[in-house]
Amino acid sequence: MSNWKLILSYDGTAFNGWQVQPGLPTLQGALQAAIASVAGESTLPQGSGRTDSGVHALAQVVSVALSVSIPAENFLHALNRALPPAIRVLSAEPVPDTFHARHSAIRKSYEYRIFERRPSLDTSAPGPEPRLPDRICSPFLAPYVWDCRWPLALEPMQQAADLLVGTHDFTSFAAADPDLSQRSSTTPGLNPVKTIFTSSLTREDDLLVYRVTGSGFLHHMVRNLVGTLADVGRGALTPADFASILAARDRTAAGPTAPASGLYLVKVDYPAEPHTDAQI
Amino acid sequence: MSNWKLILSYDGTAFNGWQVQPGLPTLQGALQAAIASVAGESTLPQGSGRTDSGVHALAQVVSVALSVSIPAENFLHALNRALPPAIRVLSAEPVPDTFHARHSAIRKSYEYRIFERRPSLDTSAPGPEPRLPDRICSPFLAPYVWDCRWPLALEPMQQAADLLVGTHDFTSFAAADPDLSQRSSTTPGLNPVKTIFTSSLTREDDLLVYRVTGSGFLHHMVRNLVGTLADVGRGALTPADFASILAARDRTAAGPTAPASGLYLVKVDYPAEPHTDAQI
Repeated sequence: MSNWKLILSYDGTAFNGWQVQPGLPTLQGALQAAIASVAGESTLPQGSGRTDSGVHALAQVVSVALSVSIPAENFLHALNRALPPAIRVLSAEPVPDTFHARHSAIRKSYEYRIFERRPSLDTSAPGPEPRLPDRICSPFLAPYVWDCRWPLALEPMQQAADLLVGTHDFTSFAAADPDLSQRSSTTPGLNPVKTIFTSSLTREDDLLVYRVTGSGFLHHMVRNLVGTLADVGRGALTPADFASILAARDRTAAGPTAPASGLYLVKVDYPAEPHTDAQI
Repeated sequence: MSNWKLILSYDGTAFNGWQVQPGLPTLQGALQAAIASVAGESTLPQGSGRTDSGVHALAQVVSVALSVSIPAENFLHALNRALPPAIRVLSAEPVPDTFHARHSAIRKSYEYRIFERRPSLDTSAPGPEPRLPDRICSPFLAPYVWDCRWPLALEPMQQAADLLVGTHDFTSFAAADPDLSQRSSTTPGLNPVKTIFTSSLTREDDLLVYRVTGSGFLHHMVRNLVGTLADVGRGALTPADFASILAARDRTAAGPTAPASGLYLVKVDYPAEPHTDAQI
């Protein structure tokens, strides 16, 4: 047996999320089929976590164990030939048997991209705002952003985003269903306490981008954070309201869930990676 | 009656081309449905020309006549609310009754975007080429380019592209089927003589981009030109071979048809546009 670490980039638009489901196009299912056609083995690749329907990945990490021996470069090219263009394997490397994409992960980073249909609120501008025309979200951008109809003020959103850094109980931002995505199977149950290392917003070209890195994330947590941050940005909530929502540990307290199309899994970190020196 | 000029941008990936077809998602059909829901009138909007399945538009021009009166800004916003995000109306303006998106057009411009999976051929590099790894086409780029497996040399491609400027019989680059796209219905029949004003290639970021402007284009003409230019770029044909193919007026002489995903209709020109001063 050899154990593999794969890094995948995918456009989630046409898939019913990561997790394999009978009769539906899923990322895990497509990868499983590609591995079967390349290696002749039916094995279920394990992702660092599930991504929901329509969510994208710049670098999802996957582990999979195979009986056959195959040079890494050949495996990479053969997988990319077998996969649809919406899924690309960026790297394939042999790793020690102890490596598991989900269990071994210590940090994850997500990015959320917002296109504001209305020009953004400049809080330093004097006087009443004129009625501004809606901007039009390009059809080539629409599957990859939240086409948000409100103008957003960056400064109060950043004040709210700053409150997330540290270790908190994120129950208020968990999905309303009990299917919580857990980072580690060594913490059974539904532990809603996570540590956020960075949480920041920037404007880049036409987009407002939220980036967050944490020890783990509950199901729908990033999208619920962004939906609630947008409520702050449009003035429906204050940063103080946001703090109260976090403290409430109440799933009904937060704002709406932002659309899947704006969300990207961008990085998964593992401990110092001694396996890169290992020989299989 | 008021006559309208609409400018549309669309991602053609999910559509069976421009022309309405029963039971299939088409751009003309989607626009017809949106106009019907906004204006309450069933009328078939006329495009400047058809685009094939998977072909995109940055600025397709459409004309449509309506009985109802509606302010232009309201019409624009209502259409964009009614249309799927893959189709956006960029502008809507009333025009004289004499304006027709196809009959009135005098020039069209297309762009074709190629991603080279292998690093491009640098014809000035000395010595034999090392074996180079394939580059990976991002899943977010794949629907919008030709993911071309050959490295291409720009210089001989540009020499060939230069040969197209002027007035020529483009029969060699027409589709093998008789359904030729004609610019003007005032030239009935299948006139394969077209004038090309500009024809040039540039490298931009990771892409090789071909831009062509002409009086009109035959069905599949740009994709057949690009497929044959790529044969020149990879060394299978010389610029002199390309000249012979153009002179042959033989549909079987040219190279393969490049994929639809790389093609964009970028501009349609009309005579001096006196209608912009007109009041409806």
